[in-house]
Amino acid sequence: MKFYDCKTAPSPRRVRIFIAEKGLDIETIEVDLANQAQLSDEFRAINPRCTVPVLELDDGTTIVENIGIAVYLEAAYPEPNLLGANPLEKGLVSTWNARIEYEGLVPTADALRNSSKRMSNRAITGPTNYAQIPNLAERGLARCREFFAMLDARLEQSEFIAGERFTLADITALCIVDFASWIKIKIESDQVNLKRWHDNVSRRPSAAL
Amino acid sequence: MKFYDCKTAPSPRRVRIFIAEKGLDIETIEVDLANQAQLSDEFRAINPRCTVPVLELDDGTTIVENIGIAVYLEAAYPEPNLLGANPLEKGLVSTWNARIEYEGLVPTADALRNSSKRMSNRAITGPTNYAQIPNLAERGLARCREFFAMLDARLEQSEFIAGERFTLADITALCIVDFASWIKIKIESDQVNLKRWHDNVSRRPSAAL
Repeated sequence: MKFYDCKTAPSPRRVRIFIAEKGLDIETIEVDLANQAQLSDEFRAINPRCTVPVLELDDGTTIVENIGIAVYLEAAYPEPNLLGANPLEKGLVSTWNARIEYEGLVPTADALRNSSKRMSNRAITGPTNYAQIPNLAERGLARCREFFAMLDARLEQSEFIAGERFTLADITALCIVDFASWIKIKIESDQVNLKRWHDNVSRRPSAAL
Repeated sequence: MKFYDCKTAPSPRRVRIFIAEKGLDIETIEVDLANQAQLSDEFRAINPRCTVPVLELDDGTTIVENIGIAVYLEAAYPEPNLLGANPLEKGLVSTWNARIEYEGLVPTADALRNSSKRMSNRAITGPTNYAQIPNLAERGLARCREFFAMLDARLEQSEFIAGERFTLADITALCIVDFASWIKIKIESDQVNLKRWHDNVSRRPSAAL
């Protein structure tokens, strides 16, 4: 099995942390996104979508989405459980993971990719170039601030994102909250629940990855 | 258990089909999106995100995301299997389901919600009003056309979306392909693989829902 990673990027960080929490040792190959190695013919042969993370199985099958990699690894290596141990917990972990992607990752990426000079014409990941839309960058900032407030309210009710223990939803939220610092959005001083949770999950050894 | 639905909307259609394929009988409550019932105080008490579908369990717990509802129902009612029967199939179904959401649902919703007169200020679902961004509607159309081409290429290799049998990924793709007719994007005459698959899955009794 091979994991195509990029040490500086938030999306593959989710897989790095997931692998570490599972205690797995998977061969890792660095893809140099800063020099657009993801758009090379060599990498397109592995993933025509030109994105990391990718998990390549020993038979050559590739899994090219964060959630797909997590679901595969959870089924192949069930312990420690990270996706839920019963129907309700499974449903809530999946729900929160998806909410964090739509309400947190998408706005943060919108804000960054539609404003950064070095991402001109790269407003969307993948093989096709799309022009930046400045209004979308602005909307992304507003929605990301809403996302932080939503997480703070959720974490007033619950120790971790999906319930009373650490799951995939916490990995996703940690990576997106940290990613938001790229667009200069940080935890506000009055977001005490989000701060308590962030301090807690950031102390896990996996968070250093 | 109660399922909050809206018969004319594409997102809860995914749950309608999923429930039918599972052979379940779940009490269904219609939410009148055309008259913005999702923004009422009554519905906000059920789902503060103001979206359908919602699955409400007998103890009052709510699951508010399509993938969360599917994962919950699959775990609670395993047969017939719709999310994958082994680690690889599970990983591929999750991957394709997520790809169809990002590459198909998001662009189609972007195109519709940023151009429709009756969705002025409703560019994003949920409690907060966001102004339309006309360039985003245009980009949505271009990306949705790419999505149809991607599906056609995939279905040249594979009878169904995630492999050799019908799964959640086919339900999601069917609902999004049909949803795209709202923005006047239909299967092109040369997309023969997509046409063959669409005819096939549309013949299932659940597709009439």
